[in-house]
Amino acid sequence: MQDNLYDCPEYPLLLILSGPSGVGKDTVARMLIERRPDSFYFVVTATTRPPRDNERDGLDYFFVNFDEFAHMIETNELLEYAIVYNDYKGIPKQQIRDALASGRDVILRVDVQGAATVRHLIPNAISVFLTTRTEGGLVRRLHQRKQDTQEGMALRTATARQEMKRLAEFDYCVVNPEGRPEVAVERVLSIIDAAHCRTHQEPVRL
Amino acid sequence: MQDNLYDCPEYPLLLILSGPSGVGKDTVARMLIERRPDSFYFVVTATTRPPRDNERDGLDYFFVNFDEFAHMIETNELLEYAIVYNDYKGIPKQQIRDALASGRDVILRVDVQGAATVRHLIPNAISVFLTTRTEGGLVRRLHQRKQDTQEGMALRTATARQEMKRLAEFDYCVVNPEGRPEVAVERVLSIIDAAHCRTHQEPVRL
Repeated sequence: MQDNLYDCPEYPLLLILSGPSGVGKDTVARMLIERRPDSFYFVVTATTRPPRDNERDGLDYFFVNFDEFAHMIETNELLEYAIVYNDYKGIPKQQIRDALASGRDVILRVDVQGAATVRHLIPNAISVFLTTRTEGGLVRRLHQRKQDTQEGMALRTATARQEMKRLAEFDYCVVNPEGRPEVAVERVLSIIDAAHCRTHQEPVRL
Repeated sequence: MQDNLYDCPEYPLLLILSGPSGVGKDTVARMLIERRPDSFYFVVTATTRPPRDNERDGLDYFFVNFDEFAHMIETNELLEYAIVYNDYKGIPKQQIRDALASGRDVILRVDVQGAATVRHLIPNAISVFLTTRTEGGLVRRLHQRKQDTQEGMALRTATARQEMKRLAEFDYCVVNPEGRPEVAVERVLSIIDAAHCRTHQEPVRL
């Protein structure tokens, strides 16, 4: 008897990690990579906004000036870009192609509007909406950041409230409990592991 | 500001655990229940076949005679039933209703043909096809059981080979590595956890 192989075809996947401003996307994304540094690739977003105190160029973001950003747009190097709070943010394509080619899953931390664009361009991306359990929890997080003027805070809160309404556009919804991001990390790991077990998989193309 | 709730609606789910004869469905199902006895309910199949040495009535199967089985068919108490190797097997409905009503996820160990019937009746069931990595691995398992005549073994092997071809009908495919069922158990747990995070969920109805 010939020894047929029964494995399902398995491809690296692209995970969109999104959610409203302040929900903890950065923390969860960082912890995911720490859990499986050899399996996951974290896409570093290019941005024209200045770095926050704890942010490192090339790791948290690529901090670029407006001219550099304009060049990336012109050469079609960005999967998606947007103006967020008067600054540009964009996702360099080549990073994603390289990571997928190396067999790693790609984790894309992106705002809600950007997630919609990426889902449109890459329909077989897995999309996760990170959320707090209540609106009050989200507002508390935004206040804890203490990086905004009162006016900026009002804008962020209103935006977050609108973003929350777009939950249904996503495949998955994961609650990020205050002070316990490891709970959300475990859920996202399950979503990734389950996705690798799907019988019907297609390679991500971009 | 009112404190809106952001949780996604979450319902107990029905997991179909299937795969070819000999792949290890019983072991994986038992280990799943042991891992989360308060969250999972294992549906006990009714069968007219005699118990194997290690099987206990009411736990592994409900062992019934042909008259009792006929009564269950007549009173429409079975979700699905079939003749398997000259014996009847069937899934009592009321168990599933009770388990779902108590908030537990229902795990249904069922053969490949039965899985097709259940998927048809309950389209939002999550279906998992348990497999070995190779056909040779499956045949070795069947031989290890040592419970069959040579003729019975040939029948089981041929059946298993046909069943393997139906993998694509399932949502998920999980390899059960020989001697390491805990690997398959972890994968199935991820599939269940991920399913509970879906943004679009409907209650199971039967």
